[in-house]
Amino acid sequence: MDFELKILGSSSATPAPDRHHTAQVLTIGNQINLIDCGENTQMQLMRYKVKHQRISNIFISHLHGDHFFGLFGLLSTMHLQHRSAPLQLFGPPGLAEILTTQFRYSFTQLSFKLIFHELNTSVHEQIFEDKFITVHTLPMQHRIPCCGFIFREKPKLRHLVKEKLPNFLTPPQLIRLKHGEDIYAENGELLVANADVTREPNYSRTYAYCSDTRYKEDILPYIKHVDLLYHEATFLDELQQQAAYTMHSTARQAATLALKAEVKRLLIGHFSVRYRDLEPLLLEAQSVFANTQLATEGKTIQVLE
Amino acid sequence: MDFELKILGSSSATPAPDRHHTAQVLTIGNQINLIDCGENTQMQLMRYKVKHQRISNIFISHLHGDHFFGLFGLLSTMHLQHRSAPLQLFGPPGLAEILTTQFRYSFTQLSFKLIFHELNTSVHEQIFEDKFITVHTLPMQHRIPCCGFIFREKPKLRHLVKEKLPNFLTPPQLIRLKHGEDIYAENGELLVANADVTREPNYSRTYAYCSDTRYKEDILPYIKHVDLLYHEATFLDELQQQAAYTMHSTARQAATLALKAEVKRLLIGHFSVRYRDLEPLLLEAQSVFANTQLATEGKTIQVLE
Repeated sequence: MDFELKILGSSSATPAPDRHHTAQVLTIGNQINLIDCGENTQMQLMRYKVKHQRISNIFISHLHGDHFFGLFGLLSTMHLQHRSAPLQLFGPPGLAEILTTQFRYSFTQLSFKLIFHELNTSVHEQIFEDKFITVHTLPMQHRIPCCGFIFREKPKLRHLVKEKLPNFLTPPQLIRLKHGEDIYAENGELLVANADVTREPNYSRTYAYCSDTRYKEDILPYIKHVDLLYHEATFLDELQQQAAYTMHSTARQAATLALKAEVKRLLIGHFSVRYRDLEPLLLEAQSVFANTQLATEGKTIQVLE
Repeated sequence: MDFELKILGSSSATPAPDRHHTAQVLTIGNQINLIDCGENTQMQLMRYKVKHQRISNIFISHLHGDHFFGLFGLLSTMHLQHRSAPLQLFGPPGLAEILTTQFRYSFTQLSFKLIFHELNTSVHEQIFEDKFITVHTLPMQHRIPCCGFIFREKPKLRHLVKEKLPNFLTPPQLIRLKHGEDIYAENGELLVANADVTREPNYSRTYAYCSDTRYKEDILPYIKHVDLLYHEATFLDELQQQAAYTMHSTARQAATLALKAEVKRLLIGHFSVRYRDLEPLLLEAQSVFANTQLATEGKTIQVLE
């Protein structure tokens, strides 16, 4: 099953000519999630051939424009192209009112059902669940209410080892084996030990998205050992004071968090327009946590099972 | 004095990969006016090297997203870059509420004074005046309240013909000559006839912007003889019924209006995404009104004195 992240924008609030505001596409199996939606996201989706009609969930971290000003245009285009599938929208208080105000003045009655989930950005809680994944909020510390998101694949079914399966097993018994159960006879006798006929399920993958925030260690328990951590890195560490003042992080801080959380890979993004060359940000992060990459436009990261 | 129009976007509501939503920059002397502000206008301004801090007036025709969704990002960037000069914003009822709602949730207190002028889109009236120009609304007929704009240079001062000027004239008398007056002695005797020492002033130029609208002849008196007319041409004439239904115009209709208004030049834009090749729209308009051009991204049109 796919577990793929695609970066649509790497820029912090002030745009740079060749960078776009924050937006990411997380594909898990057939499900496409959009994480944040900076201005022009619909064009970036087009550029990277992501069909917007296939997006089923949109997660908005906070109401600074560089993280959601593309939402109006994207929803409008979905509407103009006669989307009928419902769309789940997760965002902070206020987002619904902002959208409703716009729709009222443009006399827009959306062609699809927009299901808005208002987030409590100050807690870590589950906000979404389906057959394959859960999504939880990650409380950030920024100038306005803000949260990140952690996407976790649910535990998967064990694999049956066909050549070891006795042929008397019924389909319901096979399913129970996949769920890790042993099979007993009616008299209580062990018929098939799970460990003898199954092997470990595929690995369940995790992606944590830490949007605009100052350095914040209290999220460590939530992001411990994730496969892929995105963390904003607006500044180099020499501007640590400015980072603290604007409630952003430095590349070194992002890497320090990755190291302490013992994550597998780190992606840094949300770069200040002052950095035309991003290499120093990458090198600074890698000096603390080697397995770091830049979250630049068009980059695609596969997380393998 | 410059009188220059630059096109930033040519696309109607559904975006095309290589086209942008409506926005135009009209430079008159040192004054930069932005007309409509579709999504991503700030990046288009950057691309075409128009300094957004120099924009003094923004005119929004109506509250369909493809004409104003770039406004939030543009105002945010002006704010983040510490603009201090006041900005005049002209738009339909509702725009102020939409902006205010967003600023409230992003805790934004703009660094500059945003002076909002609510337009009555159903009348032709003057909405702006300075030393050099006036701007009037042009009532459009669209699915929601919508108006175009006509920019007129004020009548200019007559030129003094230096070699014919008697040298006894005082500075105040010279100014009166520039205003077209004759100069009399205290006893009422004609000292200098204006026609003898001045020549015609430079020509006063006009630009009319007709945003989303069905074909509407009752604006003819207002746009008569303008130097440059922009008129939307969303469809080819074979889709006249669809144009009528969606309250848009066809290329033939735009050209017919240009012909009847006896304008000097016509620009057509706001093309439906269905037209990958715009040539048929151009040819259709030119078959009615020869001096037609496509209003495509990056095109710059000088109106000469």
